Amino acid sequence: MDGKGFIEDGALTVKNGKIVFVGKSAATTNIEAETKINAKGKVAMPGLINCHTHVPMTLFRGIAEDQPLDTWLKETIWPLEAKLRPEDVYVGALLGCLEMIKSGTTCFADMYFHEDMVAKATEKSGLRGVLAEGIIEAGHKMLGKIMFHKSVSFAKRFHGYANDRVRTMLGPHAAYSCRPDLLKKITERASELNIGVHLHLAESNTMFREFEKKYGSSEVEFLDKIGFLKNHVLAAHCINLSREDMHILSKCSVNVVHVPVANMKLGLGAAKIKDLVDLGVNVGLGTDGPASNNSLDMFETMKIAALLQKITYQNPTVMPVYEVLEMATINGAKALGLEENVGSLEVGKKADIVLVDLSKPHLKPLHNIYASIVYSARGSDVDTVIVNGKILMENRQVKTLDEQTVMEEAEKTSLDLMCR
Amino acid sequence: MDGKGFIEDGALTVKNGKIVFVGKSAATTNIEAETKINAKGKVAMPGLINCHTHVPMTLFRGIAEDQPLDTWLKETIWPLEAKLRPEDVYVGALLGCLEMIKSGTTCFADMYFHEDMVAKATEKSGLRGVLAEGIIEAGHKMLGKIMFHKSVSFAKRFHGYANDRVRTMLGPHAAYSCRPDLLKKITERASELNIGVHLHLAESNTMFREFEKKYGSSEVEFLDKIGFLKNHVLAAHCINLSREDMHILSKCSVNVVHVPVANMKLGLGAAKIKDLVDLGVNVGLGTDGPASNNSLDMFETMKIAALLQKITYQNPTVMPVYEVLEMATINGAKALGLEENVGSLEVGKKADIVLVDLSKPHLKPLHNIYASIVYSARGSDVDTVIVNGKILMENRQVKTLDEQTVMEEAEKTSLDLMCR
Repeated sequence: MDGKGFIEDGALTVKNGKIVFVGKSAATTNIEAETKINAKGKVAMPGLINCHTHVPMTLFRGIAEDQPLDTWLKETIWPLEAKLRPEDVYVGALLGCLEMIKSGTTCFADMYFHEDMVAKATEKSGLRGVLAEGIIEAGHKMLGKIMFHKSVSFAKRFHGYANDRVRTMLGPHAAYSCRPDLLKKITERASELNIGVHLHLAESNTMFREFEKKYGSSEVEFLDKIGFLKNHVLAAHCINLSREDMHILSKCSVNVVHVPVANMKLGLGAAKIKDLVDLGVNVGLGTDGPASNNSLDMFETMKIAALLQKITYQNPTVMPVYEVLEMATINGAKALGLEENVGSLEVGKKADIVLVDLSKPHLKPLHNIYASIVYSARGSDVDTVIVNGKILMENRQVKTLDEQTVMEEAEKTSLDLMCR
Repeated sequence: MDGKGFIEDGALTVKNGKIVFVGKSAATTNIEAETKINAKGKVAMPGLINCHTHVPMTLFRGIAEDQPLDTWLKETIWPLEAKLRPEDVYVGALLGCLEMIKSGTTCFADMYFHEDMVAKATEKSGLRGVLAEGIIEAGHKMLGKIMFHKSVSFAKRFHGYANDRVRTMLGPHAAYSCRPDLLKKITERASELNIGVHLHLAESNTMFREFEKKYGSSEVEFLDKIGFLKNHVLAAHCINLSREDMHILSKCSVNVVHVPVANMKLGLGAAKIKDLVDLGVNVGLGTDGPASNNSLDMFETMKIAALLQKITYQNPTVMPVYEVLEMATINGAKALGLEENVGSLEVGKKADIVLVDLSKPHLKPLHNIYASIVYSARGSDVDTVIVNGKILMENRQVKTLDEQTVMEEAEKTSLDLMCR
């Protein structure tokens, strides 16, 4: 994904967690290495970057299906979240990290509560994360104030954590769920701390209309007006945008996260990603939380992202395979402010690499490696995952987590939550 | 899928290829059996039924991507198909069968050329197939005549083939690509032979408008007028339908196949499946050929079918998980005229069973087995596949085909085709 194309019979060398050589394998025959991986029949690619999720929500996977967003939140998710303890979040986050490793994601952007527990799970799993403690006011000014302080304190404490595998952002839930003065305070603090903000933007039509009625402008116009978009902004969803909104996002270099599966599953609508890309907006991809997807498989998200754009524009040439791959790797890295470190296999970057096993019936014959990865591969085709030069999974065996224990703990915790 | 719900700690017994017991495992402890399979941690479900595909097109997987339907067909697919020999079709079909076994499909409806080769691949793989030799006239009357005779002769010769695992239909490509008199002849012959017809219907907007201009009615109205819909009809796509068309499909008990992935990938549009279901139309699911999908994974198709309907109606309650599963199993069986034999795990039916391994991080915790299967499972979670009581795959090891050889032959053939 460095723009130089695909290398046949290639090799990579890694030293101190960084890539030091990328090229033909012939050039590496005399190199001595502590660890060698023979990737014959596999393709090495940058680890996938999931730009919007809430990993601890693995605990709620499949718990209330095929319901309207409102009912789902009010009758199931919020009452359960009210009972969540920090240790539950840790268990749910570990399961999410395990699932991400097993499906080739090496870096993710998360927003949830008790985010310090997500940071700890990230540390343990070996993954890379850009984490934000959520801030939601929802009419309770005092609550907003407390969460704001928690979010700031989390961001300060964990920026650079786990050998710099963890970075932080502030996490205002959305423009409609935080009051203007709180949003202004978040803007100021993010700017002082020189970190980004991660929020949900223009997700639902109903909320869009309510917001416009209340504030006399769209969410995007409003955020622009109060200076919020001067920050490094990571904005998930972006479904209901006017043409003017799109121009503002472009002008302010807002990073948009396309979240096709959850948007479809909740019947919310399709973001007009082609229009945004044409205006020069940087777009990454996200799965959303596993309770509204119900998977963290970025291979699936890549395919469905392409499909959704093609049907939305009724044009099969929209969002071709290479563009999808860029969104899931290098553009995702840009969206998280990590493009100097990850998102492509280039000398000097961190060694965040996955090997995809191509010796599978559904990946044969191989005519186009990019199409194979986007349209035919599944998360389960990932054989090896490396982050920061460390092998997290090899031959589908995860090395940093005990798979059985993580699954059992999650089952136990989720059962306990139901009965609590 | 017999309407009696999910059995916890259940067991099945099979004799002479048929299911003879379904119930609690406790009731089977004293049964002596030649082969016992311990399915602890797995779920047994009816094998998935793929109602519309062209399996030999595995050879063209990924060969020309992100192109308009017209360009894709005229510049790549048709020139390659013109070079196809029967032995190529066999090799491609074997790869398709292997892929289907590995992703839990036990029965498929296929339409292609040299379909006898698909029948032979079906025989060898152990799968069940409802096969049709395609008939396409496309302005060449003589060609239509020859293909019609080939299709009839194939249907007669292979109906009941391979221990009745193969059934046949006639395969008129589409209303717009066969002339009225040919369609009438097909209708008559299908009725005489008491077999169904498998065709593409209302797939593209452009062709819809061209057809209406030429014949003064929609494809559906036209087919109804000439008596074509009196047959058992398996109609793939059904995207561009008027309200009147939908009523005709319902009145004539036409079986519709929803093909969400290929329809999205080619930017053609979304079939209004909820409207059809509300009118009582039987709907199955299909992947389409692997060149326009690019996968034969019916788990993926189930998920994307649900997602596409929800976003099309902007309503998350549309196509709930159980309905999707019905489409992929019992309704698919009805669509192929096989509901007496397969589609559910019931005493007296053929033992077409798959075991899905639930001990995976992305399937934990287990709150809702139906949601797990539709929204979280992948084809690669299928552990065991049984057709007609015979084990085709166990512990992901395919027993009827040599995986390596099938893949190598397909790679070689497809390379040879390019150079021919």
